Amino acid sequence: MSWGSGGAGRGGYHCGMDLDEIVGKVKARDRRTVARLISLVEDESPQLAEIVRAIGPLSGGAAIVGLTGAPGVGKSTLAAALVSEIRAEGRTVSVLAIDPTSPFTGGALLGDRLRMQDHATDPGVFIRSMATRGRLGGLAWATPHALRILDAAGADVIILETVGVGQAEVAVVHAADTAVVVLAPGMGDAVQASKAGLLEIGDVYVINKADREGARAAARDIEQMLDLGAAGEWRPPVIETVAEQGTGVGALWQAILRHREHLGRSGGLRRRRLDRAGREISEIAVASLRASIGGVGDGAVLAGLAEEVVDRRLDPYAAAEKLLGRAGGP
Amino acid sequence: MSWGSGGAGRGGYHCGMDLDEIVGKVKARDRRTVARLISLVEDESPQLAEIVRAIGPLSGGAAIVGLTGAPGVGKSTLAAALVSEIRAEGRTVSVLAIDPTSPFTGGALLGDRLRMQDHATDPGVFIRSMATRGRLGGLAWATPHALRILDAAGADVIILETVGVGQAEVAVVHAADTAVVVLAPGMGDAVQASKAGLLEIGDVYVINKADREGARAAARDIEQMLDLGAAGEWRPPVIETVAEQGTGVGALWQAILRHREHLGRSGGLRRRRLDRAGREISEIAVASLRASIGGVGDGAVLAGLAEEVVDRRLDPYAAAEKLLGRAGGP
Repeated sequence: MSWGSGGAGRGGYHCGMDLDEIVGKVKARDRRTVARLISLVEDESPQLAEIVRAIGPLSGGAAIVGLTGAPGVGKSTLAAALVSEIRAEGRTVSVLAIDPTSPFTGGALLGDRLRMQDHATDPGVFIRSMATRGRLGGLAWATPHALRILDAAGADVIILETVGVGQAEVAVVHAADTAVVVLAPGMGDAVQASKAGLLEIGDVYVINKADREGARAAARDIEQMLDLGAAGEWRPPVIETVAEQGTGVGALWQAILRHREHLGRSGGLRRRRLDRAGREISEIAVASLRASIGGVGDGAVLAGLAEEVVDRRLDPYAAAEKLLGRAGGP
Repeated sequence: MSWGSGGAGRGGYHCGMDLDEIVGKVKARDRRTVARLISLVEDESPQLAEIVRAIGPLSGGAAIVGLTGAPGVGKSTLAAALVSEIRAEGRTVSVLAIDPTSPFTGGALLGDRLRMQDHATDPGVFIRSMATRGRLGGLAWATPHALRILDAAGADVIILETVGVGQAEVAVVHAADTAVVVLAPGMGDAVQASKAGLLEIGDVYVINKADREGARAAARDIEQMLDLGAAGEWRPPVIETVAEQGTGVGALWQAILRHREHLGRSGGLRRRRLDRAGREISEIAVASLRASIGGVGDGAVLAGLAEEVVDRRLDPYAAAEKLLGRAGGP
């Protein structure tokens, strides 16, 4: 139940390993191999198809917990505190933090992840941030790949943490087994959360920084807005936490486990997995189609067509048709 | 220079109008027609291709200002204050607020937009929120369509305001002529902004709620982080505002105008328009390919393939190939 650290060679197929070796290393939870596979996802490597095929049979065991909320509510701190809670039960956990591509802000991110360093030497914990570039469709394409790799590498729990809170992030977290929406008093409160579409996706709500003024009111607001929503089989609980001190984090973990039990009983777990697989298949198909367009994003054909559109010699629909025609598309 | 309000019929081609009528109504800045065309974008209507073709020659005159930042920093209030500033100069302005699909939060949004109601009776102002569903690719597909419609209808300035702040939202605002990133003391501050990828995309930075504690420090942090960034021809200014009182909003508008002059001098305006047109063409092409996949998202074929993937009888890449095969794709 722990992550190995055997070194891997360089060069050749992938880091000098053939497919069988990669599968073996993933099975053995070799950290460096797993880290490199996530890098392949970031690089949108064409090798991923065979790797996903090969490691697929190893996956399906992890519980996927999504964590989203506005910047500044304390998601990273909460994720680190959850890791402690999960580890105390002896389960292995992987944290996947989805970062936007941010070349000149590496330092800031690192500083913020310092709390995670407490777990860096724990062989039962694997932490990785992933920057998505978006050529093949960004988050929607990359996240299922990364989850499949972490799952195949035997994580009992995967915490998927987003940094932004937009359409793509909300969709990704919504596809987790349990979607946790994190709020904080005075920021990301009920109205703001509803504006960001967060009040429809949470299975569990957290008011973090609950020692601050306005925490009770924020929790009450969320409860009231949830009362207005459609009554389902599962009423999302609202948990107050002070992640910095670990307060309430046990209660949060229990709520996540209760939600998971509910999913198991109600058939919801299979529905979510079908939904997630459906999205994964679609995104792979769309990425393949995008690739068939050819130079989209940086190609000379597209640049020429863009000139014609800006100069109003061509409308964008006609330009898109020409682009598809060059790519031999439908 | 104002929006007409002539009624339009119902039924038939589009609201009972043929294409020539639509073009005429858009030219005449008929509010109801413009509102209905934006609804067609929300509905991802197949009629858009011809409409975009027909109104395209009318577009190209608007200055597009993007406004992004975490929920709660006061973007809507700032947008309303900017409208006053722009109207004082006699220019017409349209506000396009991108909302995630939020069926049970209409009330909250409406409340928040109350400030905008000050402008509701001004014939030189057009305000519209747009919910994107995401079947055809969400924001990336819908936004250029809506901008083209508002542009063709003669807005001098279009303010594009996002509610969330994620990968898709950042990309959309980045494609504006001038990208304004809004922060507030204690939330969405420098570190959080850099985490959300906001410090790479701003042409102008705003510290709103600048009468609150920590505003000076927040402004200083942003200045310092901008100093660390690549030195370009344009150093983004950091403007402090209290949008509720209108404080600093004039300075913000002047900064936007200065950035626009800079774009004109440096050739940057054409570069941004080429970039925007390129994205628009790609997204239309990808949407057309997505449509050719057929039942993606809700189809029976996809559902069957998802079952096979969840039951590990098929890997997701093989499933994607089957999906493309059924669609007659490449």
